[in-house]
Amino acid sequence: MKIAILPGDGIGPEIMAEAVRVLRALDLPGVELHDGLVGAAAWRAHGHPLPPETLALMRECDAILFGAVGDPACDGLERHLRPEQAVLGMRKELELFANLRPAKVFPGLEAHSSLRPEVAGAIDLMIVRELNGDVYFGKKGMRTTAEGQREGYDIMSYSGSEVRRIAHVAFRTAQGRSGKLCSVDKANVLETSQLWRDVMIEVGAEYPDVTLEHMYVDNAAMQLVRAPGKFDTIVTGNLFGDILSDQASMCVGSIGLLASASLGAEQTAFGTKGAYEPIHGSAPDIAGKGLANPVAMILSAAMMLRHSFSLEAEAARIEAAVASALNAGALGADLGGDMGTVAIGDAVLAALG
Amino acid sequence: MKIAILPGDGIGPEIMAEAVRVLRALDLPGVELHDGLVGAAAWRAHGHPLPPETLALMRECDAILFGAVGDPACDGLERHLRPEQAVLGMRKELELFANLRPAKVFPGLEAHSSLRPEVAGAIDLMIVRELNGDVYFGKKGMRTTAEGQREGYDIMSYSGSEVRRIAHVAFRTAQGRSGKLCSVDKANVLETSQLWRDVMIEVGAEYPDVTLEHMYVDNAAMQLVRAPGKFDTIVTGNLFGDILSDQASMCVGSIGLLASASLGAEQTAFGTKGAYEPIHGSAPDIAGKGLANPVAMILSAAMMLRHSFSLEAEAARIEAAVASALNAGALGADLGGDMGTVAIGDAVLAALG
Ligand SMILES: CC(C)[C@H](C(=O)O)[C@@H](O)C(=O)O
Ligand SMILES: CC(C)[C@H](C(=O)O)[C@@H](O)C(=O)O
Repeated sequence: MKIAILPGDGIGPEIMAEAVRVLRALDLPGVELHDGLVGAAAWRAHGHPLPPETLALMRECDAILFGAVGDPACDGLERHLRPEQAVLGMRKELELFANLRPAKVFPGLEAHSSLRPEVAGAIDLMIVRELNGDVYFGKKGMRTTAEGQREGYDIMSYSGSEVRRIAHVAFRTAQGRSGKLCSVDKANVLETSQLWRDVMIEVGAEYPDVTLEHMYVDNAAMQLVRAPGKFDTIVTGNLFGDILSDQASMCVGSIGLLASASLGAEQTAFGTKGAYEPIHGSAPDIAGKGLANPVAMILSAAMMLRHSFSLEAEAARIEAAVASALNAGALGADLGGDMGTVAIGDAVLAALG
Repeated sequence: MKIAILPGDGIGPEIMAEAVRVLRALDLPGVELHDGLVGAAAWRAHGHPLPPETLALMRECDAILFGAVGDPACDGLERHLRPEQAVLGMRKELELFANLRPAKVFPGLEAHSSLRPEVAGAIDLMIVRELNGDVYFGKKGMRTTAEGQREGYDIMSYSGSEVRRIAHVAFRTAQGRSGKLCSVDKANVLETSQLWRDVMIEVGAEYPDVTLEHMYVDNAAMQLVRAPGKFDTIVTGNLFGDILSDQASMCVGSIGLLASASLGAEQTAFGTKGAYEPIHGSAPDIAGKGLANPVAMILSAAMMLRHSFSLEAEAARIEAAVASALNAGALGADLGGDMGTVAIGDAVLAALG
């Protein structure tokens, strides 16, 4: 069980240290942790945010624990050298096509959402976002039009097979939850969405126990404000997923607590190969101060145990420890508390028993 | 002052009747109202949701008052015959490139938002959405890939001149408000957005009194939940604008109260040519029952007077009448009240004095 440990930039190293402490406390046999550089940290050392040595490490390992990337010092760089490109590069190179983002309010933390407590408290959803296609990876560029105007373009596209594989992940995810799947698209305008919808219906025939509904993305953005508790599993493309998953996360009120999994096509001896990261960024403003909340990173490690190592019991054990630590008041500055990174890590470790 | 009256489908005719009553009550000299068919209503009569006679009427008039389109009976039709296509066709044919959508909570109605009252009550923003470009109107289609896969594609693009003209509308809008403009894009991924951002900065140099900031769309979707009161004027492309404006509307809690303007490049003798419509849809489930809330339609007429006829005082008079009627309890079923379409129209007329 080889795990790549890629702390990245900003608060990445601090929160990663706590996740590693939690992993070590579980004392799992055969776990090997391999450190690597990514993002601005890698660019400083090797001139690229995702250098070949890091990519090789990612390929060798069964799972990747990823901190956060982003550094204001890189703002002036060409786009392909900026830290965020490491995330896109990793997803594409390792064919991590399925992003799972659970959004759920921890008991007792409803008051941190800007939604009314009864609206926020009802949220318990999972967004399944496609990560390898859409307008993210199509041909793109700048050209000069016949009228001498500069024009930027990006080709949005999905093929049947790309949609089919994410559809299967989504239907299986819905099966493991309430059996309700909402597919979000913009089929009244986009051909890409028409194909998306056709394939969702086609794949849905193989899952008679799942109820599939379709929603336009503008309506979904509305409903996620109006009654987010009505959603269970949502599946959508890369671009809409980027927007809606961030919106849903913020509905919960605490992006410092939310983890994500990016799963690939590859099955290892232990489970599905994947990368796991908090949904928050590298927060350069508080980096190095011991203030960052490590919970999202710790929960990312739990998702890793579940999906990449089929260690459901251990994953659930970490999640329960986090819930109990939070409930006992292990709150960082992001939640109006005064506990620092290490203290929150200590509280989770203590709850782990 | 020629106005095209296009009630459309579902509740369109009912709410339009109230807006027309309000317009007539103002007794404006020289106003001519010309009725036309659009949406499913036009498709039934002429086989097309935006038939040539309707388009001709739109071209002849100085402004268009547009109800709502959409009818479940058309669900099985080919996409180009569906009622919503009339909206897209109108925008493109008349070059209505600037969509203005104000979102603000009416005093006393904070409790209708799913956001906490103090968060909802702080909302007072204007979204300026580009309407003629982006992935909406680029080349699109289905093809078969080399591997025999069906693939849907849509080309997203913006030219410098397309961005420049919406930028001017946005900067002028921000000047008339608090002088804060937030441009939303996805420049870390899209070339289209990079061009968008470059042009916003370039045009911004002509408006030194406006503070321009840039935000990624995923972050904007988060911030619109976390602290929508921090936004003033937002400018964004067609696709992101579709999503964010619906999200912002729902934050206000009452899409039955929100109007929109779609302004064109053309200046008439009276103002800017444009189309005005509620942001809600045709609500087929309550059509013909006298239950629909006509406020958004009435406020659309007010926006028309402001932008297409330079009648600011009259526009403000309608808006004040609506605010006072709402405050006095003229609430429809959408707001937990029991007043019907005509009764709400009566209340607004009474408040108009
Ligand atoms: C950093 C950026 C390119 C990325 C994305 O848009 O996918 C991020 O927003 C995310 O959601 O992981
Ligand atoms: C009906 C649809 C094509 C349209 C759009 O996407 O622009 C609508 O959602 C809107 O916002 O006016």
